[in-house]
Amino acid sequence: VKSKKEYNLREALCWLLPIVIGVLMGITAFVVDIGIEWVVTFRYERTKDKIYANSSSIALPLFIFVSTSAAFTCVAGGLVAFVEPLAAGSGIPEVKTYLNGVRMKNLLHIKTLVAKLCGIMFSIGAGLIAGKEGPFVHGGAIVGSGVSAMASKALGWRINGKYANLFRNDVDHREFTAIGTAAGVATAFGAPIGGALFTIEEGCSFYSTFVFWRCFIATCSGVLTLHALVEARHTTFDVSEAKLGNHRDFGLYSDGDANYGEAFWYYVWEFPVFVIVGILGGLMGALFIHLNVKITMWRRKHIPVDKRNRRFYEVVAIAVLTSIILFSFAKASPCRTLPENAAIEEKFNEEEAELSGEDTVKEGRHMYFPRLWCEEGKYSVYGQLLMVPLSEALRMIVHLGETVDCTTTGCQSEIFPSASLFVFLVVIYLLMTLTYGVSAPTGLFVPSLAVGAAMGHLVGQILQNSVGADKITINMHTYSILGAAASLGGATRMTLSIAVLVMETTGAMQLIVPIMLVIFISKIVGDFFNEGIYDTHIHIRGAPLLEESGLSSSHRMITEKVSIGDVAKKELVVLPSKIQVRSLVEILKNCSHNSFPIVNGAEKSKMVIEGSISRVVLYKMLEHRLGLYNNASTAEGGEEEASGVMSEDLDTKYVLPKDQRRRRNLQNKLEPRIDGEPLHLDLLEFELNQENFLESHVYVDMTPFMQQNPFVLSPDTSLSRAYHLFRTMGLRYLLVGHAQPVVSGIITRKDLTEEHIKISIGKKVRRRMKSKA
Amino acid sequence: VKSKKEYNLREALCWLLPIVIGVLMGITAFVVDIGIEWVVTFRYERTKDKIYANSSSIALPLFIFVSTSAAFTCVAGGLVAFVEPLAAGSGIPEVKTYLNGVRMKNLLHIKTLVAKLCGIMFSIGAGLIAGKEGPFVHGGAIVGSGVSAMASKALGWRINGKYANLFRNDVDHREFTAIGTAAGVATAFGAPIGGALFTIEEGCSFYSTFVFWRCFIATCSGVLTLHALVEARHTTFDVSEAKLGNHRDFGLYSDGDANYGEAFWYYVWEFPVFVIVGILGGLMGALFIHLNVKITMWRRKHIPVDKRNRRFYEVVAIAVLTSIILFSFAKASPCRTLPENAAIEEKFNEEEAELSGEDTVKEGRHMYFPRLWCEEGKYSVYGQLLMVPLSEALRMIVHLGETVDCTTTGCQSEIFPSASLFVFLVVIYLLMTLTYGVSAPTGLFVPSLAVGAAMGHLVGQILQNSVGADKITINMHTYSILGAAASLGGATRMTLSIAVLVMETTGAMQLIVPIMLVIFISKIVGDFFNEGIYDTHIHIRGAPLLEESGLSSSHRMITEKVSIGDVAKKELVVLPSKIQVRSLVEILKNCSHNSFPIVNGAEKSKMVIEGSISRVVLYKMLEHRLGLYNNASTAEGGEEEASGVMSEDLDTKYVLPKDQRRRRNLQNKLEPRIDGEPLHLDLLEFELNQENFLESHVYVDMTPFMQQNPFVLSPDTSLSRAYHLFRTMGLRYLLVGHAQPVVSGIITRKDLTEEHIKISIGKKVRRRMKSKA
Repeated sequence: VKSKKEYNLREALCWLLPIVIGVLMGITAFVVDIGIEWVVTFRYERTKDKIYANSSSIALPLFIFVSTSAAFTCVAGGLVAFVEPLAAGSGIPEVKTYLNGVRMKNLLHIKTLVAKLCGIMFSIGAGLIAGKEGPFVHGGAIVGSGVSAMASKALGWRINGKYANLFRNDVDHREFTAIGTAAGVATAFGAPIGGALFTIEEGCSFYSTFVFWRCFIATCSGVLTLHALVEARHTTFDVSEAKLGNHRDFGLYSDGDANYGEAFWYYVWEFPVFVIVGILGGLMGALFIHLNVKITMWRRKHIPVDKRNRRFYEVVAIAVLTSIILFSFAKASPCRTLPENAAIEEKFNEEEAELSGEDTVKEGRHMYFPRLWCEEGKYSVYGQLLMVPLSEALRMIVHLGETVDCTTTGCQSEIFPSASLFVFLVVIYLLMTLTYGVSAPTGLFVPSLAVGAAMGHLVGQILQNSVGADKITINMHTYSILGAAASLGGATRMTLSIAVLVMETTGAMQLIVPIMLVIFISKIVGDFFNEGIYDTHIHIRGAPLLEESGLSSSHRMITEKVSIGDVAKKELVVLPSKIQVRSLVEILKNCSHNSFPIVNGAEKSKMVIEGSISRVVLYKMLEHRLGLYNNASTAEGGEEEASGVMSEDLDTKYVLPKDQRRRRNLQNKLEPRIDGEPLHLDLLEFELNQENFLESHVYVDMTPFMQQNPFVLSPDTSLSRAYHLFRTMGLRYLLVGHAQPVVSGIITRKDLTEEHIKISIGKKVRRRMKSKA
Repeated sequence: VKSKKEYNLREALCWLLPIVIGVLMGITAFVVDIGIEWVVTFRYERTKDKIYANSSSIALPLFIFVSTSAAFTCVAGGLVAFVEPLAAGSGIPEVKTYLNGVRMKNLLHIKTLVAKLCGIMFSIGAGLIAGKEGPFVHGGAIVGSGVSAMASKALGWRINGKYANLFRNDVDHREFTAIGTAAGVATAFGAPIGGALFTIEEGCSFYSTFVFWRCFIATCSGVLTLHALVEARHTTFDVSEAKLGNHRDFGLYSDGDANYGEAFWYYVWEFPVFVIVGILGGLMGALFIHLNVKITMWRRKHIPVDKRNRRFYEVVAIAVLTSIILFSFAKASPCRTLPENAAIEEKFNEEEAELSGEDTVKEGRHMYFPRLWCEEGKYSVYGQLLMVPLSEALRMIVHLGETVDCTTTGCQSEIFPSASLFVFLVVIYLLMTLTYGVSAPTGLFVPSLAVGAAMGHLVGQILQNSVGADKITINMHTYSILGAAASLGGATRMTLSIAVLVMETTGAMQLIVPIMLVIFISKIVGDFFNEGIYDTHIHIRGAPLLEESGLSSSHRMITEKVSIGDVAKKELVVLPSKIQVRSLVEILKNCSHNSFPIVNGAEKSKMVIEGSISRVVLYKMLEHRLGLYNNASTAEGGEEEASGVMSEDLDTKYVLPKDQRRRRNLQNKLEPRIDGEPLHLDLLEFELNQENFLESHVYVDMTPFMQQNPFVLSPDTSLSRAYHLFRTMGLRYLLVGHAQPVVSGIITRKDLTEEHIKISIGKKVRRRMKSKA
């Protein structure tokens, strides 16, 4: 029986562990951010040094630009191809699948964590069109999982106290993994609310306020840790005087002076234009998914996951291609006079002071208006957006205009000529489509936001020109942010969480209503063509994801009209409560089911359900020789009418507790935590054979170990009810039984996927047609 | 069979109706806001006019102040006492109970809506210590309910199309009511995210992303409607040039110029002080609840709900008392020289220009520094906070300091002397405790935030003094906001939603992490003493609310260790599937159960469950004479072995459809929407008797109308599983059955309350003791 103390400890840990998870993710994010900063600075500074050293040289800077990219990609791609294939991509589809209740081996190993986070530094350093956010989601999940289990197989570390396995069960483990995900998103974006909402919207099919709160604790402590560390690093003077709270990843420049009240605005009459931005975002997202699916299909055929070398060469090739394309555009860029504007001048002076030295000024090394190959006093228009890290380009498109004094109308269009935005949009969009799915850690959020921001900015410029700059000043920041939100919404089909994420990272609290509007419109438009990128990739892999029912009318119609009897598998493997050990071993060897119903009565029409037992419990029972007894009376070929008493002549290591509670407790302890390695059945069989347990008179009695009240639903229960049960109760299977509880089938997660339902209906119809004919 | 078209229409309406709800709530909020502004201005201007006309007069202004208060309270209190008692208080406990699955008559009637919203205007106008937010939650719920049902009994309005009853079932109706709640909170606070989160955290036991999204659509359209209307009202020039997005109810003054980047800050070393603020907030909340419970108990004894006159006199007396106390403090207030500060001077000049005329300047009618009875150049220190509407006082405490240029240290303490804050804190706190629960619409949010802000500001001043103003400037806005959040958290014990609400209404996005911290601490501290104010009031009323399990370790322990067999009621009323009409009428008259299991087999040990039928369906069956048949063979005293054929000689108005789907459909149509009035059973009996249906040979067959697969759980299922099912599946009852599905008990919501569980355990123990003795 669990003690009061254990419940209280559990209670306390439920709240404390999220803080631990948050702090760990905050530290992780801090370290990774420094790593990214270092590799990025290394590559761009080396390249620009060569350009400024000799403004006619092309070959040398190109070589440096491409070779550093290739070298960094070798690290990122190598980690994925040769160390841990699951570190590829964003990891969001995998984590989502796992949180939905599907097991995936190695997904939450610390090896994956290291590969993923080291990899993402170099992916970004290499200039791949990728962001760090997706990998952080995956990283957070691994941290959450490891902290809750208080163990790591890879590190050989495992707390083995009395209470160490408090959270080593399915439900708790999933909850803590979800909490880790939230902390990951939050620290990647610096967005505590958005992180928590992300997990609720995308991750959890098992929402509860309890989980939500803990997510939020984790995100808050994560963000606070990260920002305190960043302050500690940057504050040359006393950290105790550093004002916290105004970090925003894609927020305004010079946040301390930022005038949020005036930074964003919109007029009522702009709403139709916002609708257009939403539609464009939806179309961009749908097209991206469509093209990416084609590429993914091609990839699966020609560069499958098991061809590690090919996967490795592919990602390096893409990195080289990306570098060459970006470099070429920067080189071919038109030059433009530096904007003559008081605010920008002022900005420059600051930077010059920072960069220290007259040389840099002469070289035109303005942070936001790089000279590159242009003559003095001019800057490279394409280079401004293409020869910088992607997240910096996003930030510029959204916010650079604010350095300009906008009382003079039309000033904002001074910053980015439409041509520059258009080139950026097309080039990054195509490269992003090509890149997502390669063998390197790559997040989709930043690329998607960046192309969206460019799109929104273009729409804003078109509107401003058609309205007339002398009449009314519309806000380019608003359009950039709305475009970014629409594009991300079109690609991911998430809604509330990305609205809040965009709001939090940009500081655009005033825009929450239009942000929501464009995201909804882009979702509606996108859903007309295909599913979101994550779900698409999950389906390509064939994982049985249970989406929330009721989200599409056709799905709801199907689940309401079909009974579970129609989709249940009829061929199920059942066990009697007492069985020969050798039969059990045979069954385990030949059948990979994860759970077995236990019935009494041998005939198919009379199988009364007694309970169910999971595969892992069976393994553990055999491993510890639990429940074995000598059934001498019915030596060979006898039926299972065993006496049920524990025989003395067998070496039973444990005495089974008599009362139900203690038995349950024992069973709890037997259950290993999720993703526990499968025992080696052959070895087990060998051992059992050595100890003569495989002889025909040795039986095993599973009664004390089985779960006694599995959910049993009548066959004509509607599917929607079963669906709801699966999602909210976190079930792995449902038994189907008649009013007299006689087993007639078993239903698993896979039986509830839409495809399977349709197949089942088809079969039913055909059967009827036949019987009529 | 529902058609594809019907599913699509349903789908479209699921998304469109939230917009309708949002827009309606936006308009409602706009109208109510104007109303409040009007009554408030009327009262305070009249009073101040008299004071400024003759600065020595006390009696006349006091008379006006008190009599207007009494008059307004008569309207507010009268609406509650004589029109609709459910319009009292905030309505949040009632709405929460309803959303948890408990029916309450009249809660969602339009009469209640009108009484509540008219009442709240006058409550606030009368100067009662109340806010509009709680009543808006209730108002939103009514709007959501009415829109989804597309009917209003009170208005005699009802859409009777083919599809009008699409959402007239329990589940949809609850979802739309929840969506309305979200819209209500959002429009009251101008907080779209906070509104949606409020509903999820406080309202829904049936969370799904689908509901969350629709909540958010409703809140966004509501807030947008409200703000567009407000702009349209205030913009003298073209509304097309009005910049939207920067309304915040308790936000910074002069939002357009507000420098959010500099408005709020905090240092790492302040966190221990934040913890103290959290603890104080928790203690304040717990004490408030403790005192309020005492008062409520006294009130139930001496001023019960059915003594309408007493209730009415009480609220008027409290209003008069409130007015006299506030007036006395303002009169007794010390005077203080107007702060000499460039920023404030500037502020004054603007105001003076607005107020127009030299006279007002001479009278010292500064909006934020009222002269009242003081000599020229001075202002009334207590009057500043006590002679203004409560929401304005809150806004001042939080933000007034920002008008002061804070580069000179310590300037912030110029605004509010500690004495003034302390008087405000104590007076409003006590009046709030007295007021909550009177017979008038009163919200708790604003009073709780206001006293909290004063508390936080005081803590900040103490800290600033002990640190030394010359060393470092700490931010008083931060402390005010944290204090407000802690106080509200301590009173309501909500967490995430109020954190976001406070952030959204004040614009303090930088403070989200410390806000969350203080709210959590105040919740932990408060929970140590008692439950939140809403849950306390729900429990006082005895409604069977099912809180989320797993939130307290003791509760989790209980639900995990107790089986449902232990708490199930054993005396249950079952029906055979075929029964004499007159027996059925007798049963309905004598038993108030809402649902009846249908069994076959008469002996108690052999009752096999066939299904269940709800009371309302039985009523409808009798009303429409459905399923009646002539069972002539077993005339009198015969058992229920009926032939099962529909006899021709009875006037059956409907032919029962043969296939199951159509029968279900018919059943759906029979089910009236929630809160449908009970039929008059006596009248029904009379009619049936007239038509000779009460003769002994007339039977009714319930088989086609019963729900065929009620949830049946084995008696040794753990309570926590049943609990989870109740909450997530929105069940109203669960049947308990043995493995051979023979009914042994029924479990209802009430059986799952903690008290009942404890009683059941007690009984069990006593039984065992007896059997041993």
